Amino acid sequence: MAQPFDFGYVDEPFRTLASEYPGADIYPPDQFRVEWGPIFHRGRLDGSARVLVVGQDPAQHETVVRRILVGEAGRRLQGLLAKLGITRSYVFVNAFLYSVYGSVKARTRKDARLVEYRNRWLDALIGNGRVEAVLALGSAADEAWQLWKDTPNGQAFSAAYAPVIHPTYPESASKGDRAKLAEGTRKLLKNWNGALQQLQTAIAHPDAATPLALYGDTWAEGDRPPVPALDFPAGLPAWMHEQDGWARRVGKDDLEKRRSILIRVPKGVVQ
Amino acid sequence: MAQPFDFGYVDEPFRTLASEYPGADIYPPDQFRVEWGPIFHRGRLDGSARVLVVGQDPAQHETVVRRILVGEAGRRLQGLLAKLGITRSYVFVNAFLYSVYGSVKARTRKDARLVEYRNRWLDALIGNGRVEAVLALGSAADEAWQLWKDTPNGQAFSAAYAPVIHPTYPESASKGDRAKLAEGTRKLLKNWNGALQQLQTAIAHPDAATPLALYGDTWAEGDRPPVPALDFPAGLPAWMHEQDGWARRVGKDDLEKRRSILIRVPKGVVQ
Repeated sequence: MAQPFDFGYVDEPFRTLASEYPGADIYPPDQFRVEWGPIFHRGRLDGSARVLVVGQDPAQHETVVRRILVGEAGRRLQGLLAKLGITRSYVFVNAFLYSVYGSVKARTRKDARLVEYRNRWLDALIGNGRVEAVLALGSAADEAWQLWKDTPNGQAFSAAYAPVIHPTYPESASKGDRAKLAEGTRKLLKNWNGALQQLQTAIAHPDAATPLALYGDTWAEGDRPPVPALDFPAGLPAWMHEQDGWARRVGKDDLEKRRSILIRVPKGVVQ
Repeated sequence: MAQPFDFGYVDEPFRTLASEYPGADIYPPDQFRVEWGPIFHRGRLDGSARVLVVGQDPAQHETVVRRILVGEAGRRLQGLLAKLGITRSYVFVNAFLYSVYGSVKARTRKDARLVEYRNRWLDALIGNGRVEAVLALGSAADEAWQLWKDTPNGQAFSAAYAPVIHPTYPESASKGDRAKLAEGTRKLLKNWNGALQQLQTAIAHPDAATPLALYGDTWAEGDRPPVPALDFPAGLPAWMHEQDGWARRVGKDDLEKRRSILIRVPKGVVQ
């Protein structure tokens, strides 16, 4: 069996970016789970990306896989990109290297060192001139993008840009209320339909020409495809990219929960 | 802060070996934890290794880090190599790609397809002619080495070879009995002292010339050094290579335990 995988941070400038990164002095541990280490990206680093996505911060699945947007949010994003005909020519970075703990202070978000490091990633990913569209997931991502747009490289960049509602906004906004969840999902998908209509014409080189099929009022079959094996480090089992919900924070109190991630192989994989 | 890391399986033949590997048809799930995916190696793949170590099989820390010999066994091995002046010019592969579950049947161990794949790794790691000494940890590793030695490439290879007792033999053999643990440790370290004396003269190019200091009857300060960050994938937190015991299998029954790994950040890392 042949299983493609992501080579990671081999070529410059990514090699340096993955070995010299902001630590707890720039990402304060009262606002970020720095103890789990930075998680840098997902997708193509070889200059073949046509769509750049700026996300927010990594969560527990990302911490295990060491790639961003591999959980539920990532699968929803994968579906959005598929509707644009983009099945592999994408690259994702987050606004934050570490998982947010509680909330992020404005002073931290705007720390020049935090912004400068992230801008080096954006410079590197945009630099070769192939990116045709940029998506930002949520407000932190939008702010990150605007801070890069203020730089000389950002000002020189003119591809399409769509800030959209974060993929797991419905869950965050509804806190278990089913009616609110349905309403939030409807709002999200309407917002994403707008982005689809805006970006479709901007993407001149999709991986597969795809007639535009807008979202309905709720998730449909096929809207949350698996993450491709190609985006994962070598040797990870198929259930890690085909399924979701296999990693969770556990513990009897906040500190214990912060310290612990339980990985559980999904039902049916082990007989 | 600059943190070196391991680039992994970028160059051939490792690129192919890490994407086309034996699965459940060759490693039966009643004998191996195939559900966690294969774990391939630790150390130098760039031809700079002077010492090759054959280990047995990966456990739970290895499953999270996706490199072999990163738990207690790995730290003990790291100490053994340091006594030989080898602090980075090493490479490790295991007899088995997957974690052993229960015990391995002879028919499985000798499956020509399992052996052939492992021999391709050994061919690749030995091929450049720089390896000056080989260590095998435990009997499965020794058998693996002998099966390679039977091949034409193996027959042509003549560097020093020391089969030694597996680093965590004292724990496996004593099952919680303190007197047996002390006795097992004494036996292990005496065995390792023999290997040190044998291999020291064989290693013509250590990383640092080191006067031979044999082990005592039990572990001493410095005998279990941390695993270097250089051996880990990018971005993993320092406690994963500096400490041990942060991953364990949990669950109320065998199936649940097989399905679950709990990662817990060591005390003191999160305040």
